[in-house]
Amino acid sequence: MDTSKTGTGLELRSLVKENGELEVSLVSVAIPAPGPDEVVVRIEAAPINPSDLGLLFGAADMATARQSGTPANPVVTARIPESLMKSMAGRVDQSMPVGNEGAGVVVGAGSSAEARTLLGRTVAVFGGAMYSQYRCIKIGQCLPLPEGTSPAAGASCFVNPLTSLGMVETMRREGHTALVHTAAASNLGQMLNRICIRDKVGLVNIVRTQQQEDLLRSIGASHVCNSGAPTFMQDLTEALVATGATLAFDAVGGGKLAGQILTCMEAALNRSATEYSRYGSTIHKQVYVYGMLDTGPIVLNRSFGFAWGVGGWLLWPFLQKIGPASAQKLRERVVAELKTTFASHYTKEISLAEALRLEEIAVYGKRATGGKYLINPNKGIGG
Amino acid sequence: MDTSKTGTGLELRSLVKENGELEVSLVSVAIPAPGPDEVVVRIEAAPINPSDLGLLFGAADMATARQSGTPANPVVTARIPESLMKSMAGRVDQSMPVGNEGAGVVVGAGSSAEARTLLGRTVAVFGGAMYSQYRCIKIGQCLPLPEGTSPAAGASCFVNPLTSLGMVETMRREGHTALVHTAAASNLGQMLNRICIRDKVGLVNIVRTQQQEDLLRSIGASHVCNSGAPTFMQDLTEALVATGATLAFDAVGGGKLAGQILTCMEAALNRSATEYSRYGSTIHKQVYVYGMLDTGPIVLNRSFGFAWGVGGWLLWPFLQKIGPASAQKLRERVVAELKTTFASHYTKEISLAEALRLEEIAVYGKRATGGKYLINPNKGIGG
Repeated sequence: MDTSKTGTGLELRSLVKENGELEVSLVSVAIPAPGPDEVVVRIEAAPINPSDLGLLFGAADMATARQSGTPANPVVTARIPESLMKSMAGRVDQSMPVGNEGAGVVVGAGSSAEARTLLGRTVAVFGGAMYSQYRCIKIGQCLPLPEGTSPAAGASCFVNPLTSLGMVETMRREGHTALVHTAAASNLGQMLNRICIRDKVGLVNIVRTQQQEDLLRSIGASHVCNSGAPTFMQDLTEALVATGATLAFDAVGGGKLAGQILTCMEAALNRSATEYSRYGSTIHKQVYVYGMLDTGPIVLNRSFGFAWGVGGWLLWPFLQKIGPASAQKLRERVVAELKTTFASHYTKEISLAEALRLEEIAVYGKRATGGKYLINPNKGIGG
Repeated sequence: MDTSKTGTGLELRSLVKENGELEVSLVSVAIPAPGPDEVVVRIEAAPINPSDLGLLFGAADMATARQSGTPANPVVTARIPESLMKSMAGRVDQSMPVGNEGAGVVVGAGSSAEARTLLGRTVAVFGGAMYSQYRCIKIGQCLPLPEGTSPAAGASCFVNPLTSLGMVETMRREGHTALVHTAAASNLGQMLNRICIRDKVGLVNIVRTQQQEDLLRSIGASHVCNSGAPTFMQDLTEALVATGATLAFDAVGGGKLAGQILTCMEAALNRSATEYSRYGSTIHKQVYVYGMLDTGPIVLNRSFGFAWGVGGWLLWPFLQKIGPASAQKLRERVVAELKTTFASHYTKEISLAEALRLEEIAVYGKRATGGKYLINPNKGIGG
């Protein structure tokens, strides 16, 4: 390595024990010497995305969470309901690092020229274990950020930007012309709005509160439907008639929402039907479920014919499907529009130790729309 | 026309009235003069498939059915629950002919040479309105049957044979190697078993009773799982491990079955998993719902990762998707194996008037596995 930053660093770990206890703690790990095509990144910003919470807390009931340890080295424990331990079987007794994405400064490099050119650069990184002070990683998983970009500004280059771009790309590839999105006031949802406004793609936003509706309208959203309103089904149908959307991305999952969207799509399509078909419209209507904000069962009341589909959608299989060249184009767009379309906003920056405070967990752990935390594993330590 | 069979014929009609009454009756209709590329077929056999019952009785509650009229010209009426009238909106006050498929003798032909060569031939026909004494139809919708084939033997050349072949074809085109089928003891299910045995395709049959299980085993089925058994989930998982099936065709629809199949597929795939992934197996698991034996909501308890899909599947869009050349190949196979793989068995042959008897409706209307009726619109009338 080229720098003095050898030695050890703190790393956040999540452990599910066979006795049904979750333990989240900080451990001191040796910083590996980078291989020829690897660099060591001092992580200075890593967002807590909804997709991180699943690994972080597993199936634990966080209402049972207790804190022990010291302020500098806290330990959080919580109980996992016995009925959910089966779903944890694959990770029992494995201490797992957490954090899908982040950004920081390259402080060490392997022997290859490609690795060495990154020394001193601020890079966005993807690949897990980002809630760590130092992360040794392949250069292919680094995205060099333009000069002057802070780690905080580049911390969320992958999950939300590529997911929202992936939705629009899926729409185009599967022959749809407009989109529906649920939990639409989220950071991701606001990003999707900016993409759709820029690309002139019709977007129907579904939210649950007036406040979320106001927020989306304030950033220029044309179609916002409140699922709590008594006129929701009519409102949604009108928005679908206006946009022609036959594809939805749903972060909620559980409950009746996916089926309601299909029902309204069918009603919108049947507005222009000229003859009766007991099989319904022949135009395919699709809902992709990409989240589990509601972990309850998906309930589909079939009143939408036979040309429909509901399925899971995940970013990484999608990127694999479109291939490296297409994926690279999406990444280049993210960097080019990092301060506009793909800008993320955080409500708070916390250290690794602060991430284990119960009062912080109570806020960032509740998967609420809007508030987003950034972990700076080197906060207060200096660069 | 070339024959003396001009004049009128009886036709079964289903009418949903605006006041919420269903009326099924026989009407006398003029036999149209065939156009150049059309023939007139004297229908002598038309099956009552589950897919015919939807049009025949609509959303009516057949427990409220009453009979009036005369024995020769009966009329059946029944009430449609008010809550279901919305789903009938597209067909209100339109007297609709019924019967997807059938077979009979060509008794009239248009002026083209192709039409005239069919005169006197026994043909299978598809295209609706088959519960009629005479059906004027395009020659492209006729499938000439081999010499010596009776109309009864050729009456079910389309719906069940092409649906079961379509399932195997879908499996191949979407990259799966084995199948799951529900309501598997049906006429269609038995046909699918014969195809899979012949083509050496793994098939997991799901049934609801011991009797159905015995029936399928007696015709050579290797994997039969009873959804009523306390060990159903384990049995299904073992059958999925044995066959590697990741695609299911489900005639039931409502309830938890589709989700249970996905859960067992995921468990079967995870048997060979080497590392923990909280997103589950990356292998796509698919359930196509092609029927509505249970019209209640589909309830999906997600314990099968993110690589999954549930969707509608219908024969005719499928045939359109694969194109006329591929569809023709499937039809040719049906004719070639009509007396073996694609043989249908009927429990009773009835006339049009008998089809409107309440005691017959009570049997053929209950969508039960196994018993299948054949309507002969010219029964007792002579050819």
